[in-house]
Amino acid sequence: MIRLYLGGARSGKSRHALEAATAGEAPHIFVATAQPFDAEMEERIVRHRQERGAEWQTIEAPLGLAPVLTQAQSGTILVDCCTLWLSNLMLAEHKVEAEVDTLVAALTCCPANVHLVSNEVGSGIVPNHPLGRRFRDEQGRLNQRLAGLADRVDLIIAGLPLKLKG
Amino acid sequence: MIRLYLGGARSGKSRHALEAATAGEAPHIFVATAQPFDAEMEERIVRHRQERGAEWQTIEAPLGLAPVLTQAQSGTILVDCCTLWLSNLMLAEHKVEAEVDTLVAALTCCPANVHLVSNEVGSGIVPNHPLGRRFRDEQGRLNQRLAGLADRVDLIIAGLPLKLKG
Amino acid sequence: MIRLYLGGARSGKSRHALEAATAGEAPHIFVATAQPFDAEMEERIVRHRQERGAEWQTIEAPLGLAPVLTQAQSGTILVDCCTLWLSNLMLAEHKVEAEVDTLVAALTCCPANVHLVSNEVGSGIVPNHPLGRRFRDEQGRLNQRLAGLADRVDLIIAGLPLKLKG
Repeated sequence: MIRLYLGGARSGKSRHALEAATAGEAPHIFVATAQPFDAEMEERIVRHRQERGAEWQTIEAPLGLAPVLTQAQSGTILVDCCTLWLSNLMLAEHKVEAEVDTLVAALTCCPANVHLVSNEVGSGIVPNHPLGRRFRDEQGRLNQRLAGLADRVDLIIAGLPLKLKG
Repeated sequence: MIRLYLGGARSGKSRHALEAATAGEAPHIFVATAQPFDAEMEERIVRHRQERGAEWQTIEAPLGLAPVLTQAQSGTILVDCCTLWLSNLMLAEHKVEAEVDTLVAALTCCPANVHLVSNEVGSGIVPNHPLGRRFRDEQGRLNQRLAGLADRVDLIIAGLPLKLKG
Repeated sequence: MIRLYLGGARSGKSRHALEAATAGEAPHIFVATAQPFDAEMEERIVRHRQERGAEWQTIEAPLGLAPVLTQAQSGTILVDCCTLWLSNLMLAEHKVEAEVDTLVAALTCCPANVHLVSNEVGSGIVPNHPLGRRFRDEQGRLNQRLAGLADRVDLIIAGLPLKLKG
């Protein structure tokens, strides 16, 4: 079972995903894609880890999502978030299309229940910078791939879920 | 009764809110958060006031929303919009979290029917400027607070309402 | 019959519109508003044309949408997209309001089934540049006009349609 939670910045999508995933079966694996670049980020990551509670094991995977999914045998995996993962891939100059193919293959085979958080980034005006435009395109394509694969998709707006699929 | 109207720029959210609020009980108080910085803005504010009709009393409250809500005994209040209010708070370097707490407390106690207009600003790519990023975060948090409190929430897209709650 | 497909960048709106329009009655006219500024764009336009298949006749109309609609007697017209058309109008310094009035008049009279693709661009933060702000306003107004006219409106998110009207 794959669930996708889409939403803008500060839409409440991570909280919704965490609530739904916490109700899923153990073991619970939280896949963090954020990289602690500075002390503030480090402190925030630690605080979020404490808020999730003891039933959650955290795995840091800024780039390698597929191996985590491939190794899971059962239980619940929450990936927060696919947008940071995509951003990390692009900063590291990995080939996005090949990486997304690998992720999709791993998701298709994964026996655990997977909850995916991802950002909606394409509803503003065209970004000024080429990198911004490319990121927007890649994120849109990634969201379409994930939504096509997911059993259920929710768009979160101001903390309120709107079911798009499932 | 609290209603929240969310939407992007030029989505028709103000018009929807005005139509619904005009059908509510008298007296009708329009709380304008826009500040007339120049002649064009001044002219626009005057034109909008005329369009609303004689049953609407206008109160200008670029910063102090809570006192208006606290003083109302009955009738209908339309706040247009929470996004300009938030922007005014940030420009005046007020403490946003405390101000939002005060607003939420006033909304909770207000005996009048309150209609709130607010912008969705988090569905584009990450803003270049730190202030833009902070505004986006604060607006997202504010919308979640208001949506949690509201009896009904509508997202307006291209003039069409989509009920999210209520 | 008029259908409108709204969505952000890379939301899958063009694909949805093409699928629905291909199922409509012949003849099929694809109205392309993109202008080939460089070789990459030229190559992309040619590839898209091949993907649409032989039943589609392509008319390039970067500025003149109304004449195409006025000349059609029957069948199916797909306009992809209204956002590029608006952008072309603004770059050519045409009067947007008058052009939109002309388009609306042509749509109202058109005996063919018309499918319109348009972008949602107003859900990010306020653009830095005046032209960005003006474009965002004009696009919002255009989408409201088209949605008011349309028999059916769908918002496409991550490839998934959400019916807003019809």
